[in-house]
Amino acid sequence: MTHRIAILGASGYTGAELVRLIASHPSMQIVALSGDRKAGMAMAEVFPFLRHLTLPVLQKIEEIDFSQVDLAFCALPHATSQAVIRELPRDLKIVDLSADFRLRDPAAYQKWYGQPHAALEIQAEAVYGLTEFYRDEIRAARLVAGTGCNAATGQYAIRPLIEAGVIDLDEILIDLKAGVSGAGRSLKENLLHAELSEGTNAYSAGGKHRHLGEFDQEFSAVAGRPVLVQFTPHLVPMNRGILADVYVRGEAAAIHAALQNCYADEPFIHVLPFGALPSSHDVRGSNHVHIGVIGDRIPGRALVVATLDNLCKGSSGQAMQNANLMLGIEESAGLTAAPVFP
Amino acid sequence: MTHRIAILGASGYTGAELVRLIASHPSMQIVALSGDRKAGMAMAEVFPFLRHLTLPVLQKIEEIDFSQVDLAFCALPHATSQAVIRELPRDLKIVDLSADFRLRDPAAYQKWYGQPHAALEIQAEAVYGLTEFYRDEIRAARLVAGTGCNAATGQYAIRPLIEAGVIDLDEILIDLKAGVSGAGRSLKENLLHAELSEGTNAYSAGGKHRHLGEFDQEFSAVAGRPVLVQFTPHLVPMNRGILADVYVRGEAAAIHAALQNCYADEPFIHVLPFGALPSSHDVRGSNHVHIGVIGDRIPGRALVVATLDNLCKGSSGQAMQNANLMLGIEESAGLTAAPVFP
Amino acid sequence: MTHRIAILGASGYTGAELVRLIASHPSMQIVALSGDRKAGMAMAEVFPFLRHLTLPVLQKIEEIDFSQVDLAFCALPHATSQAVIRELPRDLKIVDLSADFRLRDPAAYQKWYGQPHAALEIQAEAVYGLTEFYRDEIRAARLVAGTGCNAATGQYAIRPLIEAGVIDLDEILIDLKAGVSGAGRSLKENLLHAELSEGTNAYSAGGKHRHLGEFDQEFSAVAGRPVLVQFTPHLVPMNRGILADVYVRGEAAAIHAALQNCYADEPFIHVLPFGALPSSHDVRGSNHVHIGVIGDRIPGRALVVATLDNLCKGSSGQAMQNANLMLGIEESAGLTAAPVFP
Amino acid sequence: MTHRIAILGASGYTGAELVRLIASHPSMQIVALSGDRKAGMAMAEVFPFLRHLTLPVLQKIEEIDFSQVDLAFCALPHATSQAVIRELPRDLKIVDLSADFRLRDPAAYQKWYGQPHAALEIQAEAVYGLTEFYRDEIRAARLVAGTGCNAATGQYAIRPLIEAGVIDLDEILIDLKAGVSGAGRSLKENLLHAELSEGTNAYSAGGKHRHLGEFDQEFSAVAGRPVLVQFTPHLVPMNRGILADVYVRGEAAAIHAALQNCYADEPFIHVLPFGALPSSHDVRGSNHVHIGVIGDRIPGRALVVATLDNLCKGSSGQAMQNANLMLGIEESAGLTAAPVFP
Repeated sequence: MTHRIAILGASGYTGAELVRLIASHPSMQIVALSGDRKAGMAMAEVFPFLRHLTLPVLQKIEEIDFSQVDLAFCALPHATSQAVIRELPRDLKIVDLSADFRLRDPAAYQKWYGQPHAALEIQAEAVYGLTEFYRDEIRAARLVAGTGCNAATGQYAIRPLIEAGVIDLDEILIDLKAGVSGAGRSLKENLLHAELSEGTNAYSAGGKHRHLGEFDQEFSAVAGRPVLVQFTPHLVPMNRGILADVYVRGEAAAIHAALQNCYADEPFIHVLPFGALPSSHDVRGSNHVHIGVIGDRIPGRALVVATLDNLCKGSSGQAMQNANLMLGIEESAGLTAAPVFP
Repeated sequence: MTHRIAILGASGYTGAELVRLIASHPSMQIVALSGDRKAGMAMAEVFPFLRHLTLPVLQKIEEIDFSQVDLAFCALPHATSQAVIRELPRDLKIVDLSADFRLRDPAAYQKWYGQPHAALEIQAEAVYGLTEFYRDEIRAARLVAGTGCNAATGQYAIRPLIEAGVIDLDEILIDLKAGVSGAGRSLKENLLHAELSEGTNAYSAGGKHRHLGEFDQEFSAVAGRPVLVQFTPHLVPMNRGILADVYVRGEAAAIHAALQNCYADEPFIHVLPFGALPSSHDVRGSNHVHIGVIGDRIPGRALVVATLDNLCKGSSGQAMQNANLMLGIEESAGLTAAPVFP
Repeated sequence: MTHRIAILGASGYTGAELVRLIASHPSMQIVALSGDRKAGMAMAEVFPFLRHLTLPVLQKIEEIDFSQVDLAFCALPHATSQAVIRELPRDLKIVDLSADFRLRDPAAYQKWYGQPHAALEIQAEAVYGLTEFYRDEIRAARLVAGTGCNAATGQYAIRPLIEAGVIDLDEILIDLKAGVSGAGRSLKENLLHAELSEGTNAYSAGGKHRHLGEFDQEFSAVAGRPVLVQFTPHLVPMNRGILADVYVRGEAAAIHAALQNCYADEPFIHVLPFGALPSSHDVRGSNHVHIGVIGDRIPGRALVVATLDNLCKGSSGQAMQNANLMLGIEESAGLTAAPVFP
Repeated sequence: MTHRIAILGASGYTGAELVRLIASHPSMQIVALSGDRKAGMAMAEVFPFLRHLTLPVLQKIEEIDFSQVDLAFCALPHATSQAVIRELPRDLKIVDLSADFRLRDPAAYQKWYGQPHAALEIQAEAVYGLTEFYRDEIRAARLVAGTGCNAATGQYAIRPLIEAGVIDLDEILIDLKAGVSGAGRSLKENLLHAELSEGTNAYSAGGKHRHLGEFDQEFSAVAGRPVLVQFTPHLVPMNRGILADVYVRGEAAAIHAALQNCYADEPFIHVLPFGALPSSHDVRGSNHVHIGVIGDRIPGRALVVATLDNLCKGSSGQAMQNANLMLGIEESAGLTAAPVFP
């Protein structure tokens, strides 16, 4: 059986990554692609790397016949997404890759995104899309809200530690290094090759990055009490990849064991041998996560490092994994490709 | 039916790329991996990006039981390859990725590689591995000699033009830009990040690059008379990819038509619309080739640009495509993944 | 004596490079900086790498008192430049870095830039700024038109060969590799790090690049008859640098000798030993040009490779060298810094 | 007056950087260059970017007549340095760039470098080379021990805070991002372009990096009691630059004030406006340090980010600054060049 797929917002990087993944998927077929400003164009014009595929021409969203669609991936910008999804058929399965349905608390949404939520009734049915921790809910969901790519990376390192009670909840610090594709295909001066290559810098530091809303929501829920983390993202001259250094207080061996226990049966999450730390090079282009743990010379302190590909496992790969669950098919379908190295 | 595969020389980039491709292949199983200096190590130690796969431990070649192997990929260094292959069972199917069996004329081998060939009796049965032009011979072959990655790129642009008689055979110039992985994992000062990034330079210029031996052999065979080309390769700060600018004399429209005719039914070779030129970004990590043609302001001159991923279509992907033919399975098996962009 | 300098268009890369060079100049002082859209901002906001310098705040051009200026560098976009320069005092020394005054023939300007020239009376007094070949004229000039960066690179390789009569004038082909800063700080999709890094492609191929107007004008003037070259520029993932491969017909030894003779006394132009070819890494950040020559295996053909830093010797460094001549000071003042490697 | 300079170990990156800086120095002349394995070669062969300079041929150290040398920069590998310096004339001024004389406590040296110190009598006279904090001692010194490049970066952020008593001494965490040239020109697999570009990873994590010996020594001395910091360096795909994120406990405004007070008169250390954070792009190729401070959403926590060029201010620029002091000349001589951007 072939599942009919629409991708809304196919002219951005996460949309293109979805097309790439679906091209290797055994039972998905793309029946519609939207790209408002590029409506009428072929994907080969917008993304020449997809030239070898036979794909629908880009349409405006309102031109799509959703009665012929089984599931829609919504890769639209934040705020646009809620306005669009509100108008889609109420029985259409949707995986949203924007930030619009991640935060369950409307006040938190308003705080982090600076405006009231415009589709609260739909927000109520959204399931948070961190697959390994919401698998059952996702299977039953109509609308899944994909996580932030930074938020996913941090959570893979930290959630099992909170669950296992092996770290001090008031002493969690995330220093994260992110590749440039996380910023999308937008025309900003700091994303130009001449500005970004050959250097690095922090951004949204000091507790301002929006993915903190997800950390707060999720860590507090797991802990059963408020948890606030420190978080500094950095822009690193690489196209794909996030590497999160998570500094915690606790016994490194217990921390390593908690991660191993949590992810023992997970096909995409790999805990390295104790003392080994991962490299973002080793997950590029794949749905895999590598996590490592090392103790510090100062007793009671440990470093957990997690890495994933922001466009794949951090965004479109996660979306695909969730869609597979929602459609009742093999969870790893379309996601089994090995990383690309070098 | 599962085909049992050995990879000799699995600790280099082309060996690792073969493992990556086989991981997505529907009917190949790796039963042996060799890596002489790294024998006893797990592939996850040598290439952590393959950590998620269950793979044999690296062995010495003499430890491998070839009676349990259907086909061996030989990704050993030049000269080593002929010494090893000479000792393998005479009925073992082999795809060699080295330069050792590419040149049919022993004198040409000696000229370009500086030493006499040590396995001429095996050379005689080798088929040159440029799939699209030797498909029938490859299907029937026991030993296929993979082409040079630069040699493949140039030939995709030029062979159809010689065959169609649309260019001047004495006026062919190839200015080629190559990514760094083509130089392998060897420890050379000029391959260090600090030396190679942020700049470019020519190498082996002036008619010295060994892949000229392949150009001479193949173009002369197609033309039925000696053809000598000019060829300058450059090292460009990118990990994968070759972009070959081929300057020719002839009518651009006829040249474009000859390429379109030649590749109309090829799944991996894509001729762009007339006047459009390809980018190496768009084939990264894939088995695809993009070719474009444009005329010059000077009448009678044209530029053909071809691009491919040197590790995949230029080496391990080509090897896989040939192995599929030799094993009688679908030619594109294991090779259908889309490029990775960005 | 201190020369009072204005930089018009200081918010772009060539403007910032001028500030960088003047910071090390023994007798220039910046008295005015313009940046229309950024008027009122400090340079440290626009270019934080200049934070340590005490500089005038960015102004609108009309706010500048040119009676207090000895020489103005005009680093404005093409077309804007002629409109601005037309309004400046007629006795102000000006080094223009745009394309507006490079082409002496109004018809050629219109052909390559798509519009009629709007300041022909000023064009008539402009001197073409290729320092080593127009030194005397530049010394006496009021207005010097900086060359295109690609045009400069090609000319350094070719002009001495035409002058010496050692190459076939109908067989000149330039395959050029350019760093990204040559495209300026403009917000274009193909200049984003995610699009441009890790790959390469040709652009403006087939005889369309505007710097051909300069090649045509200059080579024809030197030769005393029309000379048309073939020219393909490529975008390479490096921030600074141009490497031009120039394919010519002639005896390599005579070609090398012609270059050595021509540049024997030039402080910034270095001809490598015969057979050695330069790398763009080795001129980064400097005003130096490296040129190499090698013969081909096909008799009568040779390759000349020239490399320079597009922002420095190809643009702002050239402008400084010319300004020094116009002001009657040491030609190399402010330009003696060694390249930055790695 | 011209000071006669020798550079021992001129074939590495820090040696070449010294040559680059001296080329712009008003009163230094290089009279000898050593490079044991490359003795007899011209610097233009070892570093073609220095081709334009007239320089002594590389010699063996024992061939140098030190009676004609006023000051020697010693850019030799760790352990080699102490063996060489022990044999040099006792009245020769020396700036050592290795780790050999940084640690005053022989036990600390043995702990971090794994072997006993072989020149303790000379160690006793060495002055630690962090210029801004040891200026008077350096002026009077015969032997100055250059700091580690990471150690310098961290200290610029932290020393003034300890001195001012504005942070918790038991809660200092340094997450540092380093460019690849810090690893030198050594042939290691992880430094190849194909391995290092397009990704990032931590190294020497968990309290193992040798520069911790310097942090321990210096911070404890300033505080007057033992201070242990946490420190994780990362390799980032850039050639030059270190960016250190220093997480501390204290009031951000007081921290910013302490830094401003400390560096108010320093020509090379620039404290950004409160809340602004620096980028490593903005100090590339220069002797400048940029430092920024921001508070966190969690009260009582702050982030200090410091950035410098590891080869210049972190190593050879620092060495030059110290040599200027030792020779009684202008401290900033040879160091006034602006950063190179882009």
